[in-house]
Amino acid sequence: MKVIKTISEMRRWRRANRGTVALVPTMGFLHEGHLSLIRKAKSHAQQTVVSIYVNPTQFAPGEDLDKYPRDIERDEALCRAEGVDVVFYPSNEEMYPAGHKTYVVTEDLSGILCGKSRPTHFRGVTTIVAKLFNIVQPDSAVFGQKDAQQALIINRMNEDLNFGVHIIIASIVRETDGLAMSSRNKYLSGQHRTEAAVLYQSLQMARREFESGKRDFETLKNKMQRHILHNSSAKIDYIEYRDAETLAPVQTDTKKILFLLAAYFGKTRLIDNIILK
Amino acid sequence: MKVIKTISEMRRWRRANRGTVALVPTMGFLHEGHLSLIRKAKSHAQQTVVSIYVNPTQFAPGEDLDKYPRDIERDEALCRAEGVDVVFYPSNEEMYPAGHKTYVVTEDLSGILCGKSRPTHFRGVTTIVAKLFNIVQPDSAVFGQKDAQQALIINRMNEDLNFGVHIIIASIVRETDGLAMSSRNKYLSGQHRTEAAVLYQSLQMARREFESGKRDFETLKNKMQRHILHNSSAKIDYIEYRDAETLAPVQTDTKKILFLLAAYFGKTRLIDNIILK
Repeated sequence: MKVIKTISEMRRWRRANRGTVALVPTMGFLHEGHLSLIRKAKSHAQQTVVSIYVNPTQFAPGEDLDKYPRDIERDEALCRAEGVDVVFYPSNEEMYPAGHKTYVVTEDLSGILCGKSRPTHFRGVTTIVAKLFNIVQPDSAVFGQKDAQQALIINRMNEDLNFGVHIIIASIVRETDGLAMSSRNKYLSGQHRTEAAVLYQSLQMARREFESGKRDFETLKNKMQRHILHNSSAKIDYIEYRDAETLAPVQTDTKKILFLLAAYFGKTRLIDNIILK
Repeated sequence: MKVIKTISEMRRWRRANRGTVALVPTMGFLHEGHLSLIRKAKSHAQQTVVSIYVNPTQFAPGEDLDKYPRDIERDEALCRAEGVDVVFYPSNEEMYPAGHKTYVVTEDLSGILCGKSRPTHFRGVTTIVAKLFNIVQPDSAVFGQKDAQQALIINRMNEDLNFGVHIIIASIVRETDGLAMSSRNKYLSGQHRTEAAVLYQSLQMARREFESGKRDFETLKNKMQRHILHNSSAKIDYIEYRDAETLAPVQTDTKKILFLLAAYFGKTRLIDNIILK
């Protein structure tokens, strides 16, 4: 496995390599969720590149950029064990040299849901993904369904700007109690960690109601909200249901419904979602 | 020469072709200025692609999108005569299918000078150029110095988003009386066409003063303004001088100074510029 730290070396590797390449963009501190993305990538291409970069432009001032967990040695060992071909691990100077002024913005989709409490977040995500696509030039790229809104926005950007990358969205990997895996789970106190299971429990309530034929999503939303508030100290950021393809409001003919939520446990903001169809 | 109208065929051609490719993005209605870009492209790569597309996102409502001059037969003949390999001539449906939401924005540089009177113009330019770069995947791309601000913004975007395209800026081609060639010159009435020579005359005044050692650019600017207003019916949009590398205000240690201007002759907005060093 090669660890590449510069853009020019990454380009050189790409030019020399003749096979298909799948990219897994990550912010490191890898967990089982990331490993499932890596395995997906390996099944889709001859070469797998994992980028590890805590992207500053997707953090707002006051967010957790500085204390975002990092452990590059462990990440490298995990990648090696998975048979990753290249870890791309660039510095901030390499990715955002002085004078950087260009951003990729996906309108409408970026200002709602998570974009409401994190107004510049998705702009940072689309910008870094555009950069990584141009540097690595992958045939395919794998993202997690846990970040459902991000997945939709990246799909949109990939189509709108004609990157021509095959975007693969991998299912959510969960802890035994249902909590979606996330590097941010590390921030949780013991009590919050236990409580956090309410998020998936509430999404499971949604699935049960939906499967029993109920379609009154407003009532369901209130029920989920009550479940979370009665069984934890969480502060809910949002619980919403949207068209799973477009994030548009659900119509009577909507086929796939995305229930998605965000909540704070202490200072830690967790997200989760489920697709109902 | 191939005329390609779809993105998928353009990609197929690119994948099959093994040589280096230079792209000349144009809005068609080609003149000698464009032909000089094409010749530049041919000298830099084994294959030359000319895109002809009147890009709607770089026109604001009320601008001249609908009446922008078009003559695809003549453009194709000119490209053929120059030995162009591919004319890429896509439709609006191909370039901006329903649901398009993603834009590339280069901050600071896009809101000043021409961006003041055309606030969404450069966002449209960077978006379409990003799309063309991704579709054609050129090794190099040629733009004209006539659009000096555009050239700087595209350079910035190319670096910031790591396209890795070699950007070539070709000199301004002028009519006998000095008027910079532009498809929009066709709009000018006989009188306005004659008057329009004042723009280059005023830039020549700037060159003479600079070469004689004068560095009082405010006074010079006023002199240029008087020359234009006394000798034509033009309405001046702006006359400015900036650092030619960054568009920042000129400092005592600025090496290359870009004098640039925009003026209306009737409804037709013309731009021109000169670099002093």
